[in-house]
Amino acid sequence: DPQILVRPNLALWVTKDHQIYQKEEPYPVCPPGQCLIHVKATGICGSEIHFWKSGRIGDCCVTHDIILGHESAGQIVEIGEGVQGFSVGDRVSIEPGVSCWECEQCLRGRYNLCPKVKFSGTPPSDGTMRRFVAHPARFLHKIPDTMTYAVGALIEPLSVAYNAVTRASPYLGQPVLIAGAGPIGLAMALCARSAGCHPICITDLEDNRLAQARSMGFQQTLKIDLGWDRFETARQVRRVMGEGCAPSLAFECTGAESSINSAIYALEDGGTLLQVGCGKPDIAVPLMSMGFREVNIVTSFRYRLSWPVVIRLVNAGIFGDVTGLITHTFPIEQTIEAFETCADRSKLAIKVQIVDE
Amino acid sequence: DPQILVRPNLALWVTKDHQIYQKEEPYPVCPPGQCLIHVKATGICGSEIHFWKSGRIGDCCVTHDIILGHESAGQIVEIGEGVQGFSVGDRVSIEPGVSCWECEQCLRGRYNLCPKVKFSGTPPSDGTMRRFVAHPARFLHKIPDTMTYAVGALIEPLSVAYNAVTRASPYLGQPVLIAGAGPIGLAMALCARSAGCHPICITDLEDNRLAQARSMGFQQTLKIDLGWDRFETARQVRRVMGEGCAPSLAFECTGAESSINSAIYALEDGGTLLQVGCGKPDIAVPLMSMGFREVNIVTSFRYRLSWPVVIRLVNAGIFGDVTGLITHTFPIEQTIEAFETCADRSKLAIKVQIVDE
Amino acid sequence: DPQILVRPNLALWVTKDHQIYQKEEPYPVCPPGQCLIHVKATGICGSEIHFWKSGRIGDCCVTHDIILGHESAGQIVEIGEGVQGFSVGDRVSIEPGVSCWECEQCLRGRYNLCPKVKFSGTPPSDGTMRRFVAHPARFLHKIPDTMTYAVGALIEPLSVAYNAVTRASPYLGQPVLIAGAGPIGLAMALCARSAGCHPICITDLEDNRLAQARSMGFQQTLKIDLGWDRFETARQVRRVMGEGCAPSLAFECTGAESSINSAIYALEDGGTLLQVGCGKPDIAVPLMSMGFREVNIVTSFRYRLSWPVVIRLVNAGIFGDVTGLITHTFPIEQTIEAFETCADRSKLAIKVQIVDE
Amino acid sequence: DPQILVRPNLALWVTKDHQIYQKEEPYPVCPPGQCLIHVKATGICGSEIHFWKSGRIGDCCVTHDIILGHESAGQIVEIGEGVQGFSVGDRVSIEPGVSCWECEQCLRGRYNLCPKVKFSGTPPSDGTMRRFVAHPARFLHKIPDTMTYAVGALIEPLSVAYNAVTRASPYLGQPVLIAGAGPIGLAMALCARSAGCHPICITDLEDNRLAQARSMGFQQTLKIDLGWDRFETARQVRRVMGEGCAPSLAFECTGAESSINSAIYALEDGGTLLQVGCGKPDIAVPLMSMGFREVNIVTSFRYRLSWPVVIRLVNAGIFGDVTGLITHTFPIEQTIEAFETCADRSKLAIKVQIVDE
Ligand SMILES: NC(=O)c1ccc[n+]([C@@H]2O[C@H](COP(=O)([O-])OP(=O)(O)OC[C@H]3O[C@@H](n4cnc5c(N)ncnc54)[C@H](O)[C@@H]3O)[C@@H](O)[C@H]2O)c1
Ligand SMILES: NC(=O)c1ccc[n+]([C@@H]2O[C@H](COP(=O)([O-])OP(=O)(O)OC[C@H]3O[C@@H](n4cnc5c(N)ncnc54)[C@H](O)[C@@H]3O)[C@@H](O)[C@H]2O)c1
Ligand SMILES: NC(=O)c1ccc[n+]([C@@H]2O[C@H](COP(=O)([O-])OP(=O)(O)OC[C@H]3O[C@@H](n4cnc5c(N)ncnc54)[C@H](O)[C@@H]3O)[C@@H](O)[C@H]2O)c1
Ligand SMILES: NC(=O)c1ccc[n+]([C@@H]2O[C@H](COP(=O)([O-])OP(=O)(O)OC[C@H]3O[C@@H](n4cnc5c(N)ncnc54)[C@H](O)[C@@H]3O)[C@@H](O)[C@H]2O)c1
Ligand SMILES: [Zn+2]
Ligand SMILES: [Zn+2]
Ligand SMILES: [Zn+2]
Ligand SMILES: [Zn+2]
Repeated sequence: DPQILVRPNLALWVTKDHQIYQKEEPYPVCPPGQCLIHVKATGICGSEIHFWKSGRIGDCCVTHDIILGHESAGQIVEIGEGVQGFSVGDRVSIEPGVSCWECEQCLRGRYNLCPKVKFSGTPPSDGTMRRFVAHPARFLHKIPDTMTYAVGALIEPLSVAYNAVTRASPYLGQPVLIAGAGPIGLAMALCARSAGCHPICITDLEDNRLAQARSMGFQQTLKIDLGWDRFETARQVRRVMGEGCAPSLAFECTGAESSINSAIYALEDGGTLLQVGCGKPDIAVPLMSMGFREVNIVTSFRYRLSWPVVIRLVNAGIFGDVTGLITHTFPIEQTIEAFETCADRSKLAIKVQIVDE
Repeated sequence: DPQILVRPNLALWVTKDHQIYQKEEPYPVCPPGQCLIHVKATGICGSEIHFWKSGRIGDCCVTHDIILGHESAGQIVEIGEGVQGFSVGDRVSIEPGVSCWECEQCLRGRYNLCPKVKFSGTPPSDGTMRRFVAHPARFLHKIPDTMTYAVGALIEPLSVAYNAVTRASPYLGQPVLIAGAGPIGLAMALCARSAGCHPICITDLEDNRLAQARSMGFQQTLKIDLGWDRFETARQVRRVMGEGCAPSLAFECTGAESSINSAIYALEDGGTLLQVGCGKPDIAVPLMSMGFREVNIVTSFRYRLSWPVVIRLVNAGIFGDVTGLITHTFPIEQTIEAFETCADRSKLAIKVQIVDE
Repeated sequence: DPQILVRPNLALWVTKDHQIYQKEEPYPVCPPGQCLIHVKATGICGSEIHFWKSGRIGDCCVTHDIILGHESAGQIVEIGEGVQGFSVGDRVSIEPGVSCWECEQCLRGRYNLCPKVKFSGTPPSDGTMRRFVAHPARFLHKIPDTMTYAVGALIEPLSVAYNAVTRASPYLGQPVLIAGAGPIGLAMALCARSAGCHPICITDLEDNRLAQARSMGFQQTLKIDLGWDRFETARQVRRVMGEGCAPSLAFECTGAESSINSAIYALEDGGTLLQVGCGKPDIAVPLMSMGFREVNIVTSFRYRLSWPVVIRLVNAGIFGDVTGLITHTFPIEQTIEAFETCADRSKLAIKVQIVDE
Repeated sequence: DPQILVRPNLALWVTKDHQIYQKEEPYPVCPPGQCLIHVKATGICGSEIHFWKSGRIGDCCVTHDIILGHESAGQIVEIGEGVQGFSVGDRVSIEPGVSCWECEQCLRGRYNLCPKVKFSGTPPSDGTMRRFVAHPARFLHKIPDTMTYAVGALIEPLSVAYNAVTRASPYLGQPVLIAGAGPIGLAMALCARSAGCHPICITDLEDNRLAQARSMGFQQTLKIDLGWDRFETARQVRRVMGEGCAPSLAFECTGAESSINSAIYALEDGGTLLQVGCGKPDIAVPLMSMGFREVNIVTSFRYRLSWPVVIRLVNAGIFGDVTGLITHTFPIEQTIEAFETCADRSKLAIKVQIVDE
């Protein structure tokens, strides 16, 4: 539709002094090896609220204005020189981490650890929260006609969970704890269930998120009382999971020190904490108890090789209905409202998306 | 019910000259550490037809009359000295391989490889195809009240499949071929699906078995034409599985040389053949092609530590409805007819069970 | 030699109020399934100094007087009822952790995690620091005639290191950091080198221990300056290991928070911290940086199935000369002096042994 | 040395009708991304004798004249456009498999399985058996000044063994059988020993090769009598390895069906055959016995990511003296004689190299 191409290329910027604003950008050129995408759906990630509100995540700081956005799907409107296998009109999900393809880690296939990666919407790289964006064809993945763009934009958070589940390599029937029922925790639950984990207990501080978990079929939920100490929380988790089903794997999706500690104590001897959540730089863990019980910590960072398989699994309905994750949708012109909704816990948002038909 | 205890202890014997007969046994004594079980449901395994018809499986020969049976569930009617944790009336599934608990393999936790194992119904050990049988408490597993004895007797074939899937440790979304849709192949399909394998293609020579597969939700079936060579069969498998979904894991559940060979060629480079089926002692495999493509063969023998988790998974409905595997049921008095039905391919039996309420 | 049997059964006791004393015990009876050992060599472990000086290790407290000792070898002087495969006069090394052989963990082969283990010299179980002690035959391991009792008593600390190296499963040529050059760190270095780790950098605070490491063939040593922060220490480690050889595996054998943290930062992205050392109950680790770099923590506790293989490896000379670990030897009558030597850092002891010819 | 550059660019060709000949080639141009190498040492591989004598290996046929050679080291004489990190005069070992860096397998880091690989000296790609050859910089690896070119050319066969040992991931003290003491079997022995395998038994048909094994420190050798059946050979292997040391890993380096079968029977239950040797396309294996014993077959093809680490290990002396593998050396002008020596078993050659100072 040529009418679309004349729409203003609205982009969402964040500043180092904790502001966000929307501004029209020039229509981009399409470099060799890249495609130009009309972005049709973009999710807001918790990390973006973080960049906005605190200006940094870990050592990664907003030092100048950048465009946010890394959970997007859209339609190809232009094909760069040398690109093979894509056509104008193709519907694609964007893999935001553009790795270098030259370094040791890329060579080994662990390209999520590429030190030279350019990651959309993470300083210093601009992101996908604009109407039109160019992206390397190597990191675009076609989605089937039966998949909406909204779901295409969920491939990113599902990929985070997918990577964690493949790092854990659970066994069929492994009892699993999932700490935190935000978008990542819920995506984690979907992936863990599909990978054969059972039973699955999900915790959170907030009722609405646990209600969402239950509506997705996860009946064993536990509302955490921050007054409990780590031992009591561990006991409660084991109680919910039942006799003979102490978790031997825990996907930690909050990043909170108290949640990490109680997950470690909830684990059966010989179990594994799979750390997904990000929190304070330094976290105190009961390393001596872990040693006595041969409990390990495994970490998971972003994703590698996940898009094709996650698209395939979502399309086949393996995860069930993933759209339950999306609670709010705003047109691109209301991106600021979308961010405010996301940042305001009283709005009970889980995943907020920005769309442009 | 004391009336049950006076019923004749009918047992099913096989002879070295290819006969089966039923004979009343004395009511057994219950040795220390064991429980006496009233066997309420027992499945017939293909290996039993084999012992009957050919007198051997591999190097394991019927050298004198033995009682068959190793897929059973029942109710405890007597508790041996020193047994803890069981009571008369408990409903149990029988794990038939009684390992020694002393040897290197037992020590390592690989008790399925125990060289001193006593396996019910496999020469020289008598089996469970009798109304009353004593069995070590360590190898009895309680089943929930909501689980029928018929399902309790399916825990054994499901455990065969469970062991194979844990040996394979598939990743979520791994494309998988299952060759053979007998009881083991179908159980394999259930376990593989629950462990996140996708897509799953099932092959067989017979329509009714593939129809059963489809009725259990496995739509990608392939009827094998024995006129195809291994390359053509491999091509057909890849065609059914679809573009980008060549299997990287194949559970071979026929034992047939042609099926093994075509599975190997169907596999993606770097893939794994998980050999479950038993066939001729020596099988020719394309080892050089396997080497060039880093294709491995992994084997799986019986089971270890599977009963508690498989009971739990079946009970939670994770596999779906497993009773679809059972096509025929006979009272214990008609055990001979049950065997004849099982041996007669025209009867289209999948799993035949003998029951005694 | 019957003269030995009349010697006093001297035992070394520790009290809850930080005293050690030696006292004559009655000559023990030999229970069924056990053998009576004349203990000929026993190493003092750092944990014993800890029980003496602070009355506890983690949650394990000295609540009443117990006999210490768990690193011993000796000669069988009596055989209990039912014991097979051992004779009076056999030379054996003692595996001190007597697991239950009944629980889930024992069943899985992870008997080092047995919750019912009786561990010699750890409350509430008495240990091997006496002239004569009874021990279950299952946990005795013959040593060859060519192996001294002193070396037989080193099998225990070598087993700690052996377990850690098998938990790590290093690849041939993996660059490895070993933090801490105490008996465990040095044993770790021997095991890591034999398992193909290369290069190996060893750190410590004390010159004599690093000198010992060098005399065992480990030239890449680093004396830690506690004034360095974790980043500087990490940089120093990388410098010593050389370009292209940043460690992707670190065996942490100090338990010190600063050492753990600098090891984590020294690791290459995607690397693993293998935590062997015990320290404070709670340790702050840079979990967020670990997450961004997919750095894992794996723990190792004691040992399982190690004695036969470690005896075999030591006997074949695979580790080189292990006696370099032993710096001081005292007769059993001077056990108190042995403990004092061990506790006094100015004595520059590494492994102190108590012997009785 | 400019004098070298005017020497004739002698190349060794093989024809589809089983001839080899040497012919002068034009001095090559150096394409972008490549370096021009003066090849100073090249080993002859058994596969090259095979291409010469039988015109094929598996499905890979000599359909037109090609230049052989893939085990080479040399000195850079020219740098192509865009090449970084190399200078004229650099001493390098050549990694002969130039993978595409675009396909799924390359992406995953398993670039040894790249379907588009160009492998030097394997049809249809010309090889390194010429004085001057251009090769992509990405597949050149600097060797230290202390390493001779002869050793630099051994990195290739050592990499074959290195890949196999990393595929096997042996544990420290794992008893290992190595079947075949040709260059690959001997390289395998060096890698297995350095990776902690112990004891190691090496078999061969020929005394001189076993003598070479012994001179490299492998005392447990077994001369195979082809009159033995597979069970007898298995028994002999177990006898040589000793009580309690049945192999649980076998590196098969002959490709002979009888050797593969006896290796499988020699393996302990639960063991792994690591197939390195290539032989007939189809090999009969005792799959049913393997199944009953959970014995697996793992294959290894060429190498990935091995050069830097193997160069490092050789340079540090970890393997011991690797030059023992080289029994004959010929100047480039006598390449035909080198081939004839290699093909004539009575010459007792192990590795034959062609050199050009
Ligand atoms: N590893 C990766 O590659 C990766 C990628 C994306 C996001 N993340 C991280 O994953 C985490 C989850 O992301 P999200 O988008 O779902 O965030 P979110 O903030 O929406 O969800 C976190 C949830 O945890 C709950 N919670 C907080 N403290 C808790 C406690 N003590 N016990 C139980 N629940 C508690 C909160 O109520 C909230 O619902 C974040 O830390 C994010 O940074 C990691
Ligand atoms: N590994 C173990 O521990 C274990 C345990 C139990 C059974 N098994 C073995 O598993 C196998 C399957 O057992 P089952 O009870 O399902 O047997 P079954 O005979 O009922 O089923 C085998 C199926 O394979 C099909 N088949 C035969 N040749 C075929 C071919 N070339 N291509 C496709 N399909 C083909 C048959 O039509 C049949 O439906 C048997 O060989 C059995 O011995 C192994
Ligand atoms: N995991 C297990 O099963 C197991 C078994 C036995 C011992 N351990 C533990 O292993 C650790 C080592 O035991 P050990 O007997 O060798 O103890 P040790 O005290 O003799 O040795 C520790 C060494 O670490 C050095 N060190 C301390 N702080 C350091 C720092 N910041 N950087 C570098 N070096 C530092 C010390 O100088 C000392 O030489 C202890 O914590 C012990 O409790 C664990
Ligand atoms: N997997 C790979 O990537 C790869 C790479 C290179 C070579 N290879 C293969 O490795 C094998 C070995 O290569 P090589 O260069 O050492 O070959 P080679 O022919 O020099 O050595 C093979 C040795 O095996 C011995 N042998 C033959 N039959 C035997 C038997 N039944 N029992 C014991 N020993 C027997 C021979 O006497 C000979 O010494 C070849 O098959 C080769 O094709 C594989
Ligand atoms: Zn990179
Ligand atoms: Zn056993
Ligand atoms: Zn136990
Ligand atoms: Zn490729």
